[in-house]
Amino acid sequence: MKDNLVIFDTTLRDGEQSPGASMTKEEKLRVARQLERMKVDVIEAGFAAASPGDFDAIRSIAETVKDSTVCSLARANDSDIRRAGEAIKPAKSGRIHTFIATSPIHMEKKLRMMPDEVVDAAVKAVTQARQYTDDVEFSAEDAVRSDFDFLCRIFEATIKAGARTINVPDTVGYSIPSVWGERMRALIERVPGADKVVWSTHCHNDLGMAVANSLAAVMAGARQVECTINGLGERAGNASLEEVVMAVRTRSDLFAVETRIDATQIVPASKLISQITGYPVQPNKAIVGANAFAHESGIHQDGVIKHRETYEIMRAEDVGWTQNKLVLGKHSGRNAFKTRLADLGIVVGSEEQLNVAFARFKELADKKHEIFDEDLQALMSDETVTPEQEHYKLISLRVASETGEIPHARLTLSAGGAESQSEADGDGPVDASFKAIERIAASRSELLLFSVNSITGGTDAQGEVTVRLAKEGRVVNGQGADTDIVVASVKAYINALNKLVSKPEKVNPQV
Amino acid sequence: MKDNLVIFDTTLRDGEQSPGASMTKEEKLRVARQLERMKVDVIEAGFAAASPGDFDAIRSIAETVKDSTVCSLARANDSDIRRAGEAIKPAKSGRIHTFIATSPIHMEKKLRMMPDEVVDAAVKAVTQARQYTDDVEFSAEDAVRSDFDFLCRIFEATIKAGARTINVPDTVGYSIPSVWGERMRALIERVPGADKVVWSTHCHNDLGMAVANSLAAVMAGARQVECTINGLGERAGNASLEEVVMAVRTRSDLFAVETRIDATQIVPASKLISQITGYPVQPNKAIVGANAFAHESGIHQDGVIKHRETYEIMRAEDVGWTQNKLVLGKHSGRNAFKTRLADLGIVVGSEEQLNVAFARFKELADKKHEIFDEDLQALMSDETVTPEQEHYKLISLRVASETGEIPHARLTLSAGGAESQSEADGDGPVDASFKAIERIAASRSELLLFSVNSITGGTDAQGEVTVRLAKEGRVVNGQGADTDIVVASVKAYINALNKLVSKPEKVNPQV
Repeated sequence: MKDNLVIFDTTLRDGEQSPGASMTKEEKLRVARQLERMKVDVIEAGFAAASPGDFDAIRSIAETVKDSTVCSLARANDSDIRRAGEAIKPAKSGRIHTFIATSPIHMEKKLRMMPDEVVDAAVKAVTQARQYTDDVEFSAEDAVRSDFDFLCRIFEATIKAGARTINVPDTVGYSIPSVWGERMRALIERVPGADKVVWSTHCHNDLGMAVANSLAAVMAGARQVECTINGLGERAGNASLEEVVMAVRTRSDLFAVETRIDATQIVPASKLISQITGYPVQPNKAIVGANAFAHESGIHQDGVIKHRETYEIMRAEDVGWTQNKLVLGKHSGRNAFKTRLADLGIVVGSEEQLNVAFARFKELADKKHEIFDEDLQALMSDETVTPEQEHYKLISLRVASETGEIPHARLTLSAGGAESQSEADGDGPVDASFKAIERIAASRSELLLFSVNSITGGTDAQGEVTVRLAKEGRVVNGQGADTDIVVASVKAYINALNKLVSKPEKVNPQV
Repeated sequence: MKDNLVIFDTTLRDGEQSPGASMTKEEKLRVARQLERMKVDVIEAGFAAASPGDFDAIRSIAETVKDSTVCSLARANDSDIRRAGEAIKPAKSGRIHTFIATSPIHMEKKLRMMPDEVVDAAVKAVTQARQYTDDVEFSAEDAVRSDFDFLCRIFEATIKAGARTINVPDTVGYSIPSVWGERMRALIERVPGADKVVWSTHCHNDLGMAVANSLAAVMAGARQVECTINGLGERAGNASLEEVVMAVRTRSDLFAVETRIDATQIVPASKLISQITGYPVQPNKAIVGANAFAHESGIHQDGVIKHRETYEIMRAEDVGWTQNKLVLGKHSGRNAFKTRLADLGIVVGSEEQLNVAFARFKELADKKHEIFDEDLQALMSDETVTPEQEHYKLISLRVASETGEIPHARLTLSAGGAESQSEADGDGPVDASFKAIERIAASRSELLLFSVNSITGGTDAQGEVTVRLAKEGRVVNGQGADTDIVVASVKAYINALNKLVSKPEKVNPQV
C-alpha cells in the first residue's frame, strides 16, 4: 500500500502572480471546477487579504467545490488569518496556509523583526488559524536561504501550535535535487513531531529543476507537492503539476507514493489555463506540449510498449489528449449543445446566458463546418456570453488593407448603451481597428501583448486572440475568437477594455 | 582549476527532428554561426547520410565555422561513416559521432543483430571513423534500457578502437536524477579505459527532468552534455542548453566544472531558433522565457543580490536580455544598417542581397517609427532577401473584411516570372488570401500551423507569422513579417510555398 502524495495546486495563487496572468472571479471558478474534476487534493484559491476581489473569488470557490480542500494564503498576522478564515468558511473542507519569512535577509529587511518575534508570530498565526479550521499549513518563506537550526525551531513550534502541514519552499528556484532532497531528509529527521505532519515542498523553476527538486523531496519523505498547471508562476514558474503527477505514476517502480489525480483531465486543464491567461504552452513542453507524444519513429514507440516491466508507459490518451473530433455541426440542437458544454465542465449561469451562447454557436456553425471542443471552449470564454460585464460592445466593423495603401478601419461601438462611430488609419488592419476603438474609449492603457493562436486546424480555423492591456499598474487579459483574425482581435481588445472597467486591484505575496 | 564541461549542441540534428522544425541550409548556417559565437564546443550539424541536403548543410557549416568542432552523426555502417567523414572534411576541427542501439528490444527488432555482431559493428565503425578524424564519439542508443554488463563491454571495446567520447543517452526521457547519476558513476567505475575518454550524457525531457538528469550525470563524472537551444527536440525535447549552462555557472559552489559558453549570446540564439522553426518559447520557460527575469517584488531581488556568498546571482543581462533599444530609424544610412547586421551576426551574402534588404528596411522605417534588433532579424529572415529561392512572389494584395459580410481577397502573384491575378472569399481575410494564392499555386499542401508573434511592443508592432505546410510527408516553415498581419501572413504562406518548391527530403535517426 503506497502513501498518498497530496497534490496542492497553486495555479490560482502563485500562478496568478505571473505578470499579466490575472483572472476574473468567473475565470477562477472555471479553473477551480476543472481542478476539482481532476481530483486535486488542495486548491489554493488565492490570498484572501490581497483584495476584496480575491476574497470573493475564494469564497465563491469554497461555496462551489466539494471534492477538493479549498485553501487561502495568509500572512502571519491577525487580520490576514481572519480574512482567510472567513473566505474558506463555506468550504466542505477548508485550509488556511499561513507563512512568514525565515531567512536572515527577509527577517531583517522585509519584516524588520528579530528571530524570536518571527517564531512568536508564526505560533500565534497557526493558533489563530486553528480557530477557523483544523487543517492549517505553515510555510517558512525563503526556507532555502534560512538557517537550518532556526528552521527546525520554527517548525517544531508551529507543529506544537497545531500546524498539520509544513511547507518548505525554494523561493528563488536555485536548488538542485541532491541538495534539496538532503535538506528535506534532514528536517524530517531532526524536527520533533515531524511524524505528526505532512511535509510539503514548493519549488520554483529558475534553473529548470523545479520538478526534479520536488521529486527529490518526495524521495526524502515529503508527502505534499505544491505545483501549478503548465508550471505557471512568477519568473520561470513553479513545479509543473502534470510533470510531477506523471513522473510519479510512470516511475511507480521508483516512487513509494501515488496520487488520486484523474490524469485524463490534465490536457483540458492545461488548455483552459493557457486560454484564460494568454500564456502559450510551447510544443516541446513535457506532457502537455503539442509534440509531447509525437513519436517520429515506429520502432521507438514499439520499444516503449514492449518494455512495460521497467515502467508504466505513458500514452497520450492517459493524460487527456484526444483526436480533434467533430462534436457538433450546424444542425445540432440546443440540448446537444448544452450537454456537450456540461461534458466539458462549462457551467452556464442562466437561461439568458445559454441563449446568448447558443445564438453565437449557430453563427459560428454557419461559418465553420466542423465545431470541435476547442471551438466551444473559445466560444464560451467570449465576452458576449457574460453580458453583465459588457460596458463596450462592437456593433460593426469594416476594415480594408491593400499593398501600397494605408490600412483604414471604420467601426461602430456601443459604450454604456450609447453608440458611437469612429475611424482611423493604422500600420495594419488590427492597428487601425485598435486606434478607432481608442478614439471612442480613450482608455489611455498600454498594449503589452497581442497574441494569436489557431484553436483548431484547417483553413477555417478559428483564431483566438489575447490582448493584454496595462493601466496604472493594473493588467488585464482580453480574449476574442473568430474565424476572422481582425474581428477576433477587436473582440479581444474590447474584452480587455471591459475588464479594465470592472476589475479591482490586488497585492501579491512572495512564497 | 575546474574541469571543462564540453557543451555539445544538437539543435541542428536532434532539435531539427522535432515535427515541423526542419531548416533550410541557409537557416542552418545562420544557427551554426550563432552557436560558434556563443562558443559551443561541439556543433552537431546534422546526419550526413540522411539526405544530400543534410550532407550539403554539414559541409557548408564545416567550411564556415572555425571556433567550434563540427560533428556529423553516422550509423555504425560503412557508407554512413564515409558520408560523415566527407561532410566534416573541410572543418578545422571535425568529429564523427557514430551510434548503434544496445538495448535488447532495439537489437532484436530494429537491427536484427546478435549482441556480438553489434559490438563488432560498433568497433568497426569507430575504427573506420578514426581514418577521417581523431575525434570520434560513440553512442549506445537507448542505453537507459540496455543491460549494464553489455554496455560496459561495448564501451570498453569502442574505447580500445579509438573513441574519445562515450555518450550515454536516455533516449525515452524516463529516468530520474538519482538513478541516472548512479548509472553514470557505475559505468565510469567499471569500464576499463574510462579515464581515457570524455563521458557524455544525452537526456530527453518526457518527464520534465532532462536538465536535472544531465546535471546528475555531471556530478557523477560526465564531462560532456548534449543539449539544444530552447530544449528543442522530438516529443518533449532535449536537455535545454541554457538551463544546463546557467545552472553550472550559478551553482558554481556545487559543480566542479565550468563551460566556455558566452552566456550573453543565449537569448539571441533562443530567439533565432524560435523564429526559424516557428516554435514559440513559453513566457515561463527558465532563462529564455519572456518572464524568466520579471521579478514582481523588490525585496526578493534585493535578497538575491545580497546573498552572493551562496551562489552567483543570475541577471537578465548575463544571458543576453537587453532592453528593446532604438537602433535605427528612417534616416539611418546603408553603412549603419550593414554594421548593425554584422553586430547581430547576420551575414549578407552579396551586394545585391544587401541592396534588397536595405530597400526593405527603408520601407519598414516609413511605417514603423522605431526599428529594434528584433525587427532587423525578422526583416532579414524575410523571403525577399534571398531572391534565388523565389519562385512565387507577391505583387499586390487587397483584402477587406466587414461584420456581416464575407471576407474577400484579390491579389496578383508572380509565379516563375509570370504574373497572375486571382480572388477568393474566405472565413477571414487571411483565409481568403490563402485561398486566392492556392487558386494560382495549386500546391495541394496541408496547412499544419499558423502562428503569429508580435516581434516588438507598441501599436506599430511588426507581426511575424509562421505558416507550416505539409505535402506528401514533407514539412516546411514559411516566415513573413509586416506591420500588417494579413500581409505578414501572405508573405509567410508564399515563403513556405517557395521552400516546398526547392527543398529535398530526408530521413531522421533516433538517438
